[in-house]
Amino acid sequence: MTSQVLAIDFGGTKVALGTATTDALDGRPHITTRLPTRGDQGARRVVERALAAARELLRTPAAVGVSTFGVLRDDVIRLAPNVPGWDGLPLPRLLRTEFGATPVAIDNDVNAGAAAELRWGALRGIDVGLYVNLGTGLAAALVAGGRVLPGAHGAAGEIAYLRDRADAPTFADGHAALEESVSGSALARHGSALLGRPVTAAELFTHRHVPAVAALLDDAVGTLSRTIANLCVTFDPQRVVVGGGLMGAAPHILPSIAAALTRSVPFPPDLQVATFADDAPLIGALAMAVTLATTA
Amino acid sequence: MTSQVLAIDFGGTKVALGTATTDALDGRPHITTRLPTRGDQGARRVVERALAAARELLRTPAAVGVSTFGVLRDDVIRLAPNVPGWDGLPLPRLLRTEFGATPVAIDNDVNAGAAAELRWGALRGIDVGLYVNLGTGLAAALVAGGRVLPGAHGAAGEIAYLRDRADAPTFADGHAALEESVSGSALARHGSALLGRPVTAAELFTHRHVPAVAALLDDAVGTLSRTIANLCVTFDPQRVVVGGGLMGAAPHILPSIAAALTRSVPFPPDLQVATFADDAPLIGALAMAVTLATTA
Repeated sequence: MTSQVLAIDFGGTKVALGTATTDALDGRPHITTRLPTRGDQGARRVVERALAAARELLRTPAAVGVSTFGVLRDDVIRLAPNVPGWDGLPLPRLLRTEFGATPVAIDNDVNAGAAAELRWGALRGIDVGLYVNLGTGLAAALVAGGRVLPGAHGAAGEIAYLRDRADAPTFADGHAALEESVSGSALARHGSALLGRPVTAAELFTHRHVPAVAALLDDAVGTLSRTIANLCVTFDPQRVVVGGGLMGAAPHILPSIAAALTRSVPFPPDLQVATFADDAPLIGALAMAVTLATTA
Repeated sequence: MTSQVLAIDFGGTKVALGTATTDALDGRPHITTRLPTRGDQGARRVVERALAAARELLRTPAAVGVSTFGVLRDDVIRLAPNVPGWDGLPLPRLLRTEFGATPVAIDNDVNAGAAAELRWGALRGIDVGLYVNLGTGLAAALVAGGRVLPGAHGAAGEIAYLRDRADAPTFADGHAALEESVSGSALARHGSALLGRPVTAAELFTHRHVPAVAALLDDAVGTLSRTIANLCVTFDPQRVVVGGGLMGAAPHILPSIAAALTRSVPFPPDLQVATFADDAPLIGALAMAVTLATTA
């Protein structure tokens, strides 16, 4: 029997909501609503406003999927320093209070993005795969047996914290070494400083004629490519899917990743761009809800 | 009903065989035989001699576990350049011919070591874990759901090929960058050159008063510790178990690994030395055989 599911994606700047029917073939949400996150008002208020919007959208969902930044550990959010009160927020409990007996699935935004690719996108039918998000932040999802591996503390794939030099700054000192050097936000910051005006990371690739910009990008793309190849050496996937805002400059990045895979990985996986872009976490939350509703 | 199982471990210098009863509590083999590998005689001859020894040891095993260097892909051995004919050897078929309907499990030596730790050692009861072998070579096994993850091509955990610098040599050029710089064999080679006489990697730690040796070891131990921390960032295990020949110098290595985990991993796993040492692959092959015999 077809029924309706609800999805909520809590992001750093916006909260997105959508609905779909359980027989959805492509992950496109039927109705979506977007609210500014307004994190400065505090995490509880963000959740209250999202739940009020959810009630407007769909009264009785068959299941609910929720995506959030940070990671979920012991029923609270961790590794989410950017919205006041989000780190330590008991989101699962707040959702149970709202939705009662309705089944609710919750995961972080990158794992949700991987769930979207697994159900409707570039990871469909893949047993062992890797989903890498190259965006404002950096994170990956490890897929085995066709499911996202959460890790022992919900933190598998948090590659922002990888350190590739002995003098790289550590998590204990409040740093995310890889993310601070080569993420979308790091490139935007360094590139804006070089050009003397604000640019996004993807825009920066149109300024390669500036030698200092070319050097910055070559170094960053090289590091990202080597990192993805190292993840493949470690995890041995059959396919790697790359998504996130930096895919706006995909023609400048994918050839480097492909070359690193071919040269450095004993059994090179194939490489695909993610099917879903900005809305991947929302669509992943829908995928999680559909899975719950159709297997419960 | 208790019955007897057989295990064979194909190593680069020796082939080890053992038997155990299916109710074995500790993994200690009842009878063991060791043969020199004599790889120069060719892979088929190595297998024939091992199977002849197996017939002497146990006529009708309830199940057989086999450990080998290299990795198993599409029913042949790969990534095994050191014994002539081993790369490409159809070992599973040769074993089926020998053992007929008797169930046979086969895996690489490091995954077998992890199987030993899972059944009888330091990974018992662990859902998400990591087993790292710091020996002549470097390799890891990823454990999720209490089982070793093989990867899509049998090559998960082949960390010998990790590259932590843009100029590190690649697999395509015939190199294993990490293993060539900091494995037991790399340390023995570099250390022997520094001291002007042959030393093993573990012995090298008793020569720390030589400044060049101290610098070599600090650099290698730092790289190994950072690598293990990076694996934990990626995989998020609850426990890391470290084995292999370098554990002969455990007091010089473990504190550095522990510090790297504490400083660099968002949710640091606990750290233990492997229960099994040199004979880990044989005991792992016994564990695989016992599992087969008791679940078939």
